[in-house]
Amino acid sequence: MDNRPIGVLDSGMGGLTAVRELLKLLPHEDIVYFGDTGRVPYGTRSAEIVTHYALQDINFLLGRQVKMVIAACGTVTTTLPASLTTRFDFPYTGVLFPTVEAALAATRTGRIGVIATATTIRTGAYERELKKLDPSVAVVSAACPLFVPLVENGFVERDNEVTRLVARQYLSEIRAAGVDTLILGCTHYPVIAPLIGDVMGENVRLIDSGKAAADYAKTLLAEENLLADRRTAGRCSYFVSDAPEDFARNASIFLGERFDGRVDRIEITSYPDTI
Amino acid sequence: MDNRPIGVLDSGMGGLTAVRELLKLLPHEDIVYFGDTGRVPYGTRSAEIVTHYALQDINFLLGRQVKMVIAACGTVTTTLPASLTTRFDFPYTGVLFPTVEAALAATRTGRIGVIATATTIRTGAYERELKKLDPSVAVVSAACPLFVPLVENGFVERDNEVTRLVARQYLSEIRAAGVDTLILGCTHYPVIAPLIGDVMGENVRLIDSGKAAADYAKTLLAEENLLADRRTAGRCSYFVSDAPEDFARNASIFLGERFDGRVDRIEITSYPDTI
Repeated sequence: MDNRPIGVLDSGMGGLTAVRELLKLLPHEDIVYFGDTGRVPYGTRSAEIVTHYALQDINFLLGRQVKMVIAACGTVTTTLPASLTTRFDFPYTGVLFPTVEAALAATRTGRIGVIATATTIRTGAYERELKKLDPSVAVVSAACPLFVPLVENGFVERDNEVTRLVARQYLSEIRAAGVDTLILGCTHYPVIAPLIGDVMGENVRLIDSGKAAADYAKTLLAEENLLADRRTAGRCSYFVSDAPEDFARNASIFLGERFDGRVDRIEITSYPDTI
Repeated sequence: MDNRPIGVLDSGMGGLTAVRELLKLLPHEDIVYFGDTGRVPYGTRSAEIVTHYALQDINFLLGRQVKMVIAACGTVTTTLPASLTTRFDFPYTGVLFPTVEAALAATRTGRIGVIATATTIRTGAYERELKKLDPSVAVVSAACPLFVPLVENGFVERDNEVTRLVARQYLSEIRAAGVDTLILGCTHYPVIAPLIGDVMGENVRLIDSGKAAADYAKTLLAEENLLADRRTAGRCSYFVSDAPEDFARNASIFLGERFDGRVDRIEITSYPDTI
């Protein structure tokens, strides 16, 4: 038993879709969330800069005494090298492995689509990990760089004409490839999952990377006997690196419920980038 | 006469639309461009962070011996307070004053529209400056937060269906207000000026803030006898704070011609934020 909080980091607000799932799965856990809103987006930056930022983010969370770290950010997950993350002396998960496992469990035809930011797609990490675990699968990937700004600007309704038009363009190749499973490899995308589902058709199973990471975290904590030992609801603390008001205003888009948490701003650049 | 370069800064690549105009107007001048691609976008960040970043950017340019600084970035221009910029001991201009002057010279009906990033619109700076110079004008403003990602992702053709749909939504109030002049208060927007012009109608004059700033810089340098004294073409040097390849790949979108310049990466966070 371990009553310390679970740490969740993201480049901005997308990781809140993982928090939403954690709240459902593990309601007794405290959560410390850090959204690097002062340096968002990570998805367009070089691997070197993303690594530097991510290590600062993790050091901030460790300073808040978290018992595990979830990188609820596709870009961080696929950019931090395993040579680094396997040396961490605390439980850590990105979204990649849990999501790939969920996709392989879901597919029947072995044809899997992956959508994510340009940086994530460029790394080829999802495709590589899928084929490592099951060399027989066929993978089709597409970068969807406009989905993040569309979500952040509230173009999120299921019938939004602009987002639908963009989705049809971005998803056309993946649709043509006849996949039966689609990985939403960016934590912003679950917000427009109903729209993406409409474009893909009802026979395609969508895999939410935030949900997959939350499922995986629950299993991991249970196995290591690190689940919280309390009957009351856990508390969430939110930290950001730019204006807290902007975060509080938009958080409900991602959490799927009214946001009334406290948000504090921290100076993330003052944290070390070595672990 | 002064053969030192002109310094141009922007949060990313948009300022290249000002460089394009400088190249036309002042072909004998050297130009040093800094695009803060490692920290882009500024338009969604707090005033405090934008000021901190902008002062570091200016200090980098001053270190390159520039004779004047053009902040070719709507967000920097409207965020840096006059109490600060009037103390600079070098010629400085943002895009605000030159653009407002050009708009007031262009309007016949005194009804002026302003489009820019959310942060720029929130400051109310364009409206305030327009009314300061001519209290009789009527101003209608609209934030167009998706225009920057649309431009950066290449949704820029005149008949692009997505960008046209977004433009119709963003511009509907300004169109209904019957303006005869529209300020493009973000240096990304000239890239989609033909599309914006189609949506607004042929009777609306578009004011390009990069072009206005370049015109103003030429006048200022001539008045202060600081124009370059050479007959050969000037040289452009480009510096960025993230991957130079990405900048080089997309620069032609903004410059309107093939880009074959040299791009170097610098560590902008190591520059002081006091002047």
